[in-house]
Parts: sequence; C-alpha cells; structure tokens
Amino acid sequence: MEVFAVPGLPEFEPGDDLAAAIEAQVDLRPDDVVCVASTVVSKVEDRRQPLARFEPTERARSIAERLASITGSTKDPRFAQAVLEESTSLVLDAPFLLAVTRFGHVGVNAGIDRSNTGGQGVLLLPEAPSESAARIRAGLSESPGVIVTDTSGRPFRTGQRGVAIGWDGVPVGRDWRGERDRDGTELAVTVENVADELAAAANLVSGEGAGGKPVVVVRDFEFGDHGTTEQLFRDRETDYVRQALEAWEYGQSGPAEKGVREGAEPKDTADADDHGEHERGGE
Amino acid sequence: MEVFAVPGLPEFEPGDDLAAAIEAQVDLRPDDVVCVASTVVSKVEDRRQPLARFEPTERARSIAERLASITGSTKDPRFAQAVLEESTSLVLDAPFLLAVTRFGHVGVNAGIDRSNTGGQGVLLLPEAPSESAARIRAGLSESPGVIVTDTSGRPFRTGQRGVAIGWDGVPVGRDWRGERDRDGTELAVTVENVADELAAAANLVSGEGAGGKPVVVVRDFEFGDHGTTEQLFRDRETDYVRQALEAWEYGQSGPAEKGVREGAEPKDTADADDHGEHERGGE
Repeated sequence: MEVFAVPGLPEFEPGDDLAAAIEAQVDLRPDDVVCVASTVVSKVEDRRQPLARFEPTERARSIAERLASITGSTKDPRFAQAVLEESTSLVLDAPFLLAVTRFGHVGVNAGIDRSNTGGQGVLLLPEAPSESAARIRAGLSESPGVIVTDTSGRPFRTGQRGVAIGWDGVPVGRDWRGERDRDGTELAVTVENVADELAAAANLVSGEGAGGKPVVVVRDFEFGDHGTTEQLFRDRETDYVRQALEAWEYGQSGPAEKGVREGAEPKDTADADDHGEHERGGE
Repeated sequence: MEVFAVPGLPEFEPGDDLAAAIEAQVDLRPDDVVCVASTVVSKVEDRRQPLARFEPTERARSIAERLASITGSTKDPRFAQAVLEESTSLVLDAPFLLAVTRFGHVGVNAGIDRSNTGGQGVLLLPEAPSESAARIRAGLSESPGVIVTDTSGRPFRTGQRGVAIGWDGVPVGRDWRGERDRDGTELAVTVENVADELAAAANLVSGEGAGGKPVVVVRDFEFGDHGTTEQLFRDRETDYVRQALEAWEYGQSGPAEKGVREGAEPKDTADADDHGEHERGGE
C-alpha cells in the first residue's frame, strides 16, 4: 500500500473545483482512495465566516462566561454561538465545548477552526461531508473512493490523529464478524473502521499549516473479502461514554469507586486550558 | 510512504526470537518503522494464560455477577479477576470493564484477548510494551523504529482501529506547537500522535485471525523538521472524559442538560452487550 500527497495544489477559494484541481495533478486509479482535508472542502464550499456573523444568544454568553472563569482567559461569545449553531447538542459545556455536529460527528467546538481565517473569522466544517465526498468523487473520472478528513483529539491518549468525517465510494468498516482465528475462536475484532485508519494514514503525509498538502492518495489498499459497514458515528443509545459525559458536570466531585486510586475530583484551575489537543482554534 | 506486511512469518511460541524471524523475511532500513501486533509479542513473552490460573476474589465475583445481570449472559468471574490483576484501576465497572493497564493504557477488559487461546485461556497484553519494542529493536541490525500495536474501540465512532501501546526509536508525537498557517495564525493542531497513526496505517494491511500478518513495515515515512513528544497516554488530571467516566454510575439517570435533545438515561437492557467493538474476547 502506498500513501502519497498530491503535489502542486493551489490555495483554494470558494467555488473552486476541487476534483478538477486534483485530477490536473495526479493520474488516479479506480481503486485509489483520495483523502481530502476538510479545511479545503470547507474553503471551496464557502464555509469561512466572519465571527461578526454570529449574534450571541443569552446561552452563548453564559457558556462563554463560564469557560472564561474556568480557564482564566477571555472567551468570545460569538464563537460559542457559532458552536451552538453548528451543533444539534452539546456533550460537554465545560471545561470545553464538545458538540455533536448536524451530521453526527462529536468534536471539540463542533470542529470549528480559527486558524487559516485571519483572526476574526472561523472555518466551519462542511455542512454534509459525505455529500461533499460524493461531489468530489463525481468529478473524478476514475471514481476512486473519497474520504473527507479532519484531525481531532480523543480521551485517554495524547495528541490528535486523522479521522474521517465523510466518505463516498469506500466502505467505513471492514466487518470481521463471524470470522475465526487459527483456533476456531471467533475474532475479538468485530468491525474495523478502515475509513478512520485511511484518514490517519493520510495525515502522516499531509502535514499542516503553510506547508500542508491537503489531498493524499492511498493506493493499493486491499479491502479483502469481508463484509462492509456504512456507519461512521456511534448511536447515542449504545455510546456509554457519551451518556456519561452528558450526565457529568464539570467541577462536581465524583465518587472514588471502581478501584480508582486517586480522588475523582477534577482540578478547578487554569489547567482546564491545558487539555491541549482537545482544543481547536484557540478559543 | 509505503506500508507492507512482512510475508511468511511462522506461528510464534513462547521464547521465540521475533526480531530474528522478522529479519529473516525482510531487508529493513534504519528509517523504517516496524509495527508488531501485540498478540505475537504476548505469545513470545508467554502471556497466554489458562483462565484457571485466576482465582476470583469477592470483588471479581461481584463484578461478574453485575455484568451478567446487565447483559443477560454468563460472565466468568475468573476473567474479571484477570482484568483486575492486569489493571491499576477501573474507569468503568459496568456495563463493561474499562481498565487502566499497569503501563497506562486505557482499554476494554485491560486489552485481554480470548481469541487465539483455545477457549479456556486468555492472552494478556505484554507487561511493558515499550520494553518489548526496545528488545525487538535491539535485535534488528538496522535499528528501525518499533511500535507494538493493538486494536481498540473508542467513544463516538464505530469500529476498532489500530493504536500504539508501546514504542521505541520513533517519537510518539509530532509537535506543531508554535508553527503557523499561511495567515500567520497559530495552528489549531498542537501535537499529532504519529505512533497511533502509524499503528492505524499498519492495521489496514495486517488483517486479523488465521490469515493475519502480524508485522507491518512503514517505509519512507517523513517525520519532518518538528518537535517530538514521548507521552502516549494522557494524564488523568487533564483527561476530563476519564474523570467523567469514573464519576458515572451505569443505570443512574442523568440530567438532560447542555441542550441534549433526548433524555440521558441509558437503556437498561441486553443492549449493554451491543457495544460491539468495545468488547474484546467475548467476555
């Protein structure tokens, strides 16, 4: 399997034809998977917005005030408003905003980015990334798989890694259910999220910022003879972590049960800003 | 960047020399990253154990009984005992066991696998996967980077993906802090966990079960001119998700705050078994 960035792409502007720009730089094959960073998809889809567009409601003001008091730094209520407008619900409102986007992705600040927008703007995620992927794919003559990628942090583990937020022409999951190991025992792995793994592989070569290469091709990935799944985001009903976070209140003291060695009370200090890779865009 | 599985490896047994077996099959280069599935590391390190070895304490019995009542299927208290013995603490004790291993990894059932062990056994994770990685690396003449990988589920997103649990000779993180985008705004990405992304890329080609290829080489990965980080697991103090889970009690009703559209009460049904990719080894 080969993973390479598409060279020589221009800066993208609203209305630009991403597929044509990609096709001008690389000879794609039908079984390639083209991973496109959400930032450039957002740019061609005109998702860069001035912060002034977001008129903060009382709720946004109250969220921003609380975050400011927790983190000890000012928080723009217009940014909180942007997060609320891009979300169907908040999983956490403190010590940072963890939101469910309209297309089902759970991300810090609803995935809204403040870099690459000149300070007074925000870059919203694409409205419907799988539809974006389908449009890009339709414009590519060989119809390779297309994944729209983002980067995000996660619990338990440091750092961000690439994830898929939209896809077309490539399955989300490789379904191992019912397959067996050498002993005949059913495999512990049930479904492998290959879309996320492809996005992670792409992120290794795409880079960030001024030198970033936003489109990466994965070539000769062999899916193999397995079932497929097409669901990327967990159902809330079976996502106990999401339920626990929704029920949790930042600053509440928790029971030191389950053999937890230290007390479960969170530190109520400026360290709330220190979750680092959870944050996007310095809000 | 190229990602390929090492062909022709044998079945591994306790005491086998993994490095020698790898080197017999592939000409490695100093800047390769060799990703080795934890299952084969565990096997050569004799971490396959009969369930009978685990004498359940009262606590293990009580945990197993509760899980059985939640899921409606029998739970072996010896398996719960194995999870407790491999862990420093439990993040969740219901509706499944989410444990912190002795080396700091948070995983369902402490990463214990029941496949590949003939039914009455368990395969424990390596005791100290980074030390395992260092031993393998020391046995490879070109000293490539070595990552010990596992697969695990996660909140919010379906399916499992490859993750690193140990590493040597390759940094965990690519540190983008202080770097700027084209507009001069500081990048939203702070640290990219390349170890996890390499493990994810490797998992795309390694497969599982009887046809699995447990060792994968990543070639021509360019780390670039960036800072490095060497921490893989989050500190509990700044991991709010972990704190929330520790404070949460399965079956409690949660407040429908934060704009959550539906009630936050978890379903108390056999669906607890349906978290699928959270589970390992069918326990």
